[in-house]
Amino acid sequence: MTALSGFFPPKTASGASALIPSPPWLYSGDLLTVEYRTDPARVRELLPEPLGLAEEDPGAVALIWADWQSCSSGRDELLDPVRAQYKEAFVVVRCSYKGRTYSRCVYIWVDKDFAIARGLHQGYPKKLGSIHQTRPHPFGPAPRIEAGARFGATLAAADRRLAEAVVTLREPSETNGFVNGHPMAHNRWVPSIEKGKGLVLDELIESGGASFEGGKSWRGDADLTLFDAPTEELSRLEIREPIAAYYRQVGVVWDGGRLLESAAQ
Amino acid sequence: MTALSGFFPPKTASGASALIPSPPWLYSGDLLTVEYRTDPARVRELLPEPLGLAEEDPGAVALIWADWQSCSSGRDELLDPVRAQYKEAFVVVRCSYKGRTYSRCVYIWVDKDFAIARGLHQGYPKKLGSIHQTRPHPFGPAPRIEAGARFGATLAAADRRLAEAVVTLREPSETNGFVNGHPMAHNRWVPSIEKGKGLVLDELIESGGASFEGGKSWRGDADLTLFDAPTEELSRLEIREPIAAYYRQVGVVWDGGRLLESAAQ
Amino acid sequence: MTALSGFFPPKTASGASALIPSPPWLYSGDLLTVEYRTDPARVRELLPEPLGLAEEDPGAVALIWADWQSCSSGRDELLDPVRAQYKEAFVVVRCSYKGRTYSRCVYIWVDKDFAIARGLHQGYPKKLGSIHQTRPHPFGPAPRIEAGARFGATLAAADRRLAEAVVTLREPSETNGFVNGHPMAHNRWVPSIEKGKGLVLDELIESGGASFEGGKSWRGDADLTLFDAPTEELSRLEIREPIAAYYRQVGVVWDGGRLLESAAQ
Amino acid sequence: MTALSGFFPPKTASGASALIPSPPWLYSGDLLTVEYRTDPARVRELLPEPLGLAEEDPGAVALIWADWQSCSSGRDELLDPVRAQYKEAFVVVRCSYKGRTYSRCVYIWVDKDFAIARGLHQGYPKKLGSIHQTRPHPFGPAPRIEAGARFGATLAAADRRLAEAVVTLREPSETNGFVNGHPMAHNRWVPSIEKGKGLVLDELIESGGASFEGGKSWRGDADLTLFDAPTEELSRLEIREPIAAYYRQVGVVWDGGRLLESAAQ
Repeated sequence: MTALSGFFPPKTASGASALIPSPPWLYSGDLLTVEYRTDPARVRELLPEPLGLAEEDPGAVALIWADWQSCSSGRDELLDPVRAQYKEAFVVVRCSYKGRTYSRCVYIWVDKDFAIARGLHQGYPKKLGSIHQTRPHPFGPAPRIEAGARFGATLAAADRRLAEAVVTLREPSETNGFVNGHPMAHNRWVPSIEKGKGLVLDELIESGGASFEGGKSWRGDADLTLFDAPTEELSRLEIREPIAAYYRQVGVVWDGGRLLESAAQ
Repeated sequence: MTALSGFFPPKTASGASALIPSPPWLYSGDLLTVEYRTDPARVRELLPEPLGLAEEDPGAVALIWADWQSCSSGRDELLDPVRAQYKEAFVVVRCSYKGRTYSRCVYIWVDKDFAIARGLHQGYPKKLGSIHQTRPHPFGPAPRIEAGARFGATLAAADRRLAEAVVTLREPSETNGFVNGHPMAHNRWVPSIEKGKGLVLDELIESGGASFEGGKSWRGDADLTLFDAPTEELSRLEIREPIAAYYRQVGVVWDGGRLLESAAQ
Repeated sequence: MTALSGFFPPKTASGASALIPSPPWLYSGDLLTVEYRTDPARVRELLPEPLGLAEEDPGAVALIWADWQSCSSGRDELLDPVRAQYKEAFVVVRCSYKGRTYSRCVYIWVDKDFAIARGLHQGYPKKLGSIHQTRPHPFGPAPRIEAGARFGATLAAADRRLAEAVVTLREPSETNGFVNGHPMAHNRWVPSIEKGKGLVLDELIESGGASFEGGKSWRGDADLTLFDAPTEELSRLEIREPIAAYYRQVGVVWDGGRLLESAAQ
Repeated sequence: MTALSGFFPPKTASGASALIPSPPWLYSGDLLTVEYRTDPARVRELLPEPLGLAEEDPGAVALIWADWQSCSSGRDELLDPVRAQYKEAFVVVRCSYKGRTYSRCVYIWVDKDFAIARGLHQGYPKKLGSIHQTRPHPFGPAPRIEAGARFGATLAAADRRLAEAVVTLREPSETNGFVNGHPMAHNRWVPSIEKGKGLVLDELIESGGASFEGGKSWRGDADLTLFDAPTEELSRLEIREPIAAYYRQVGVVWDGGRLLESAAQ
């Protein structure tokens, strides 16, 4: 009989076909973060029990663009970059669980299948999208990372633009924002294959980076616009008050999380 | 507190953001099927316990291209066709479970995110790919569905061509092939978020169409070529002997499956 | 010395690399046409001298979606369908030249490079876009071509939706509309490589199908919406009055055009 | 009557729809160059009269990957980066004209329509492709620009991989290679709209950067593989002897060229 290998389907004798390899997963990338306040009721309606609103600044939202190169521990993907490079835009809010504050991704769009699969494992609610952000460059018309530099960022899905931002950097910053600064509290839900039978997996999990390095953060301000779309609710997180925008280059390792609780079936 | 809605993430108060709605899922499409025999050992190595090789013709493989329009019961997707249309190429073998013969998809590539999500639910090991097949047309140079008509079909992933076929139709057929003719026996596997802890969901499920309609099948022959790629093992299912090729237009409804067994954690 | 071959660059000794082969070019496809009236001044501002507004119904516009399979006379592309299939959406108005009425394409988006190159040759002002239209199908939820059938059509470019329509078929029709029914009067303009020196090619040409076959036309009505975008002016052709919508399957051959006049350099 | 505006079609009253604006065009980007020697006869067969082989090292070829952000003088595109970012892979050889040595691009693939249009203006024989190259990054697993750093680069078109390279940097270099170091000698050819009537534009033009800035060049070596494809002849430029590989970040302005000669019609 066969022992199938592979962290993720398709599983085979060798495991070479798996859409994603087992962690650790390594990332190099640029983060462009736009923070603002929305109606806290719009955040609360996205938090399943037993999660509650964060105690302080419960309506704070971060819309983050990220331009990644990622790989497994063998790093082969970096040399076949169609398998390493992807972009994403994601929306983070904060929540509380047993008295502790967590970050939580409520919407996320990526442009590669391996990123979808990693997100499923980590509890990110991933869809495909078209994501672009200005890249810093040392020469020519593209911006350096410096005061006055301007970066554009856009998100579309299903041929509709969902968000666009122009960020102007103002000064170095001690932080890269506060909304995405906690461990993530995510759900992993799998519905029964049998119709109407509810969930067969219903987990609340915690996850965060296993290691992190990064350059100086820059703080600035953003012009951010959210657009309506028939299958998206991003624009319900309406912009009541801008907070700030940030730019940072980082290196991250992700190597698994921790089960917080599981609803038995 | 919040009751989140939606069959699939992202879940929201309304459920409108879910990547896929709850079944039933309705499909209109064209199936181009190429059947051949490979070394049965190459099939066996893809079958996890307790599945075994099919008793008859255990090395039979079907490589199937499908050009779909799909929707939920509300049918809204059909009028915003970027949300309805997708293409796929998938590889089916047969297996036996408790004395019964099943079909099983061992590899599959699609070109939309909603198709990935439906596949995850149904136990299809989906990846993104670039899939093309000649479409029949009543006018001009494209083929009619008739004797002598030729259809091309290609599959690529990660910028590498994985398979290509040219099918020539010969005559009407009583069947559309035999490899994909049984209920599907698929696994649904979810690894623990905690590193090294194995699976938290490990199901063997059965699934098939809830209803089906279709046109006349046509039988013909195929020139099929499989190509190597570093992250794919399709070409291990090497072509030992052609069987036949088929073309059929169908309408299908999928409305859930049945749990065969679950390995408790 | 070398004689380079090929209808279009890149030219090589064999000509095999040319982005497009020499005509004739053969097409099979489905046309979804939405006709409406706009302010004739908005049409006039798109007509270069010596073209003038059409005498009758000068504000009539056709926005046409087309789902094509195309090939050269050798027909090889049909068997490698990534090289044959493409979609387009284009805007046609009418104009007059020396007392004769012509059709003229003022905007067009396609989704393949060979379609861009053919358009350049023919004087179509092509850009890349993302184009979708519902396909008729004999089974399942997709529409048949019949009274009451509904087809959706959308156009996006640069991650912004530019147009969307839902067409409902009502009855067979003697025509497939009237705006796109004349020979095309197009310009072919090439600016000098030397800055500020104007055009080195400035032609007005006439072109039309070399042969045509088609099925029954269906007439219906459309809900059409045009959207603004910073690099597009489609929405300036604002909808003042709907005319009708049409659906037809066709086969077409294009085999060259005729020079009407050329501004000498 | 109307005066149409715009450097390139579609031309309108405002010019805002033009696929590309008038030069100057500004670029920031990373160049990964692989130089090798092929059979000079394979170079010669790509050179139209009156161009001849370069006197020294006539079989030298440069295969160059470039990851660009580009804009017009208004720089708006940089803030809507889907309109600024593109990638390309191109093949350069050298040739002689009237005793002077020129560089010449014989094949090029890009991934955006505005890049195709600029290439048409400049005489680059552009097609669409899928192009990827590893990006340097200061953090995480992606390489820094330093000795021992490894960069992958791949090119595909029509769902087939055409070339792949892995470059290892060894040391700083005084040059970024020599094959792409001369002014470009390109042809601009436009066939008559009338069948069989030959060219209506047949120019030999010269072009080069109007200004240039760049960082330190790095030299290294490459593993380069070229693949056959039915509509491409890149692999005819077979690799006889590697020369070297280079990496450099640059800023470039292009602002028009010069007519060398024109074949009268």
